[in-house]
Amino acid sequence: MDRFRWGIFGTGFVASKFALGLKVLGNHEVVAVASRSQEKAKAFAAGLKVDAVCGSYAEIVGLTNVDAIYIATPPNVHKLHALMCIAASKAVLLEKPFAMNAAEAQAIRAAAQANGVFCMEAMWTRFNPAVQQLKNRVDAGELGEIHLLNGSFGIQEVHSESNHLFNKSMGGGALLDRGVYLLSLAIYLLGKPDYVSGVLRCVEGGVDEQAAITLGWQGKTTAQFSVSLIADLPNNLSVSGSKARIELDAPIYRPSRLRVFASRASVRTPVQAPSNKDHIRESGALHQIHQHLLPLLMAKAGKKVNALYAGNAYHYQAEEVRQCVQSGKLESAIMPLADSVAVMEVVDRLLAQ
Amino acid sequence: MDRFRWGIFGTGFVASKFALGLKVLGNHEVVAVASRSQEKAKAFAAGLKVDAVCGSYAEIVGLTNVDAIYIATPPNVHKLHALMCIAASKAVLLEKPFAMNAAEAQAIRAAAQANGVFCMEAMWTRFNPAVQQLKNRVDAGELGEIHLLNGSFGIQEVHSESNHLFNKSMGGGALLDRGVYLLSLAIYLLGKPDYVSGVLRCVEGGVDEQAAITLGWQGKTTAQFSVSLIADLPNNLSVSGSKARIELDAPIYRPSRLRVFASRASVRTPVQAPSNKDHIRESGALHQIHQHLLPLLMAKAGKKVNALYAGNAYHYQAEEVRQCVQSGKLESAIMPLADSVAVMEVVDRLLAQ
Repeated sequence: MDRFRWGIFGTGFVASKFALGLKVLGNHEVVAVASRSQEKAKAFAAGLKVDAVCGSYAEIVGLTNVDAIYIATPPNVHKLHALMCIAASKAVLLEKPFAMNAAEAQAIRAAAQANGVFCMEAMWTRFNPAVQQLKNRVDAGELGEIHLLNGSFGIQEVHSESNHLFNKSMGGGALLDRGVYLLSLAIYLLGKPDYVSGVLRCVEGGVDEQAAITLGWQGKTTAQFSVSLIADLPNNLSVSGSKARIELDAPIYRPSRLRVFASRASVRTPVQAPSNKDHIRESGALHQIHQHLLPLLMAKAGKKVNALYAGNAYHYQAEEVRQCVQSGKLESAIMPLADSVAVMEVVDRLLAQ
Repeated sequence: MDRFRWGIFGTGFVASKFALGLKVLGNHEVVAVASRSQEKAKAFAAGLKVDAVCGSYAEIVGLTNVDAIYIATPPNVHKLHALMCIAASKAVLLEKPFAMNAAEAQAIRAAAQANGVFCMEAMWTRFNPAVQQLKNRVDAGELGEIHLLNGSFGIQEVHSESNHLFNKSMGGGALLDRGVYLLSLAIYLLGKPDYVSGVLRCVEGGVDEQAAITLGWQGKTTAQFSVSLIADLPNNLSVSGSKARIELDAPIYRPSRLRVFASRASVRTPVQAPSNKDHIRESGALHQIHQHLLPLLMAKAGKKVNALYAGNAYHYQAEEVRQCVQSGKLESAIMPLADSVAVMEVVDRLLAQ
């Protein structure tokens, strides 16, 4: 199999994680790095210890020896860079958030389709083995009817001018940076929600620094997600169904363990007068023992399923791009463009509230 | 100190737990039991192994040797029974949900005030030592500004005709049976919310079998609560503040442990080219070790605070009633009637949506 050759747009944290993550794969390599400054691109390539062509975005997009371009520039230039790559017939892996809004997302999708170019959102968590396990179990009906999703993603950040997460024009905000993880997961499991509602806490004239999201599907299934830039949250996901509940342990962006709790509906026995058993059951002595055992019981509860990821878990999406591109597909079945647009539509509706 | 003498209305599960819970206190006793059927009342007293007068509600309310009446009848007769006791100048401990709606709750409160009779909702969880710890820590500013509350209370029930939880006219439904726990906790910590929104899943012409609740306080603090009769949920509570996050471990109705996680805002260091450290940090080897250690790290995370309850935790509210009544108070400072009315107002708003 030929080596799959990547060009990278942008030299930030995620670009670094992605590029270093490729090392776990034998057949991927970074051959080109683009940045606004030639210096930065060179420093990035040197740091990666790869012999890559370094240049401007326009220069890199024109290279013939690049199979796909991973765009890791800020969200406000995603559309610009994606359209540039698509126009040059370069397959695109586009960092999340996919775009600034649904209109941009739709424009990128339309361009990719019109030009017959592969394009995929770099929603790496979808390809995570634990998420794939969850998806398979949900699809196999192991949870029965899905009733509720409860999830959160919040890590407190220092609010500073230089932190792009608090910069609205660059695509900051809790929804675009963190909401998309949970929204994409929900849409992956359940499709597009018909009900969308949210309570946002916004900085005066600035980004949403926190959001409480409620999604609904046909009045049957509900999701409650909290995302925050200002508070630490549990950062896990619980999926409750009629037959079982699955908890995806933290951190939600890179889980490696599920716990499966079988549901057994409590049968209410007819009311009886207090029995000797009840005297024991409600005694302080029994409750003391119970309380001391509880942490242990909680730790042992559920069936633990390890779903460890390889590498740093960023490479799964890269391998998906390679397989799709080399087999002539224009979209990933796991992360289709319709889902990326759907996520942005939900974000738009939440930000408009 | 004189023994505090209880009359009990109703002979169901909660009445039994309450009465058996009193045994941990040396100075409380059940001296009277009222039920629709004399037989049931007698069987209940016999089961409790107490020598109690058994009779109709009207008979028991007239006894002079009863200091307070604990009303554990179904919600649809709470108002009737509370007003009966108040009219007879009997102090009242009224099982939750306090009433069927806010109008009833307000009527009970008004009657208690007009007649100068002590009245309190039997929201036993407020008096739980772990909840008191949480309240004290929040009030002391240990969490800083409170940003988010995330909680759930769901246990799957068998849907049957005889299960009163699915009976609307008797006061069933997820909100009245379970929502009130979380709503009362939120109001205890933060006061009355100004924003109330919910997504209910209702049985055709019947109860809300599930509810996703969002509360807001001055656009600053948000709470997301899920309650369900049809799904098992995590059943814990997370309170996230600017300085720390506290998790009240399950079960939310009778917690015995808190975990306190200090928040340290992540400082974003300026972007650098990948360093040798980054190569190690993003290596598969390091991530494998991390994943294997993660369950242990998670178990060790946070400062565990045991706040074990005595007895079966139902007696704290009884002792509060005794202390209030014997010192001539008409309300509990911990569980005031205004809060009980506020909880019912929120329930009304949610059910009206």
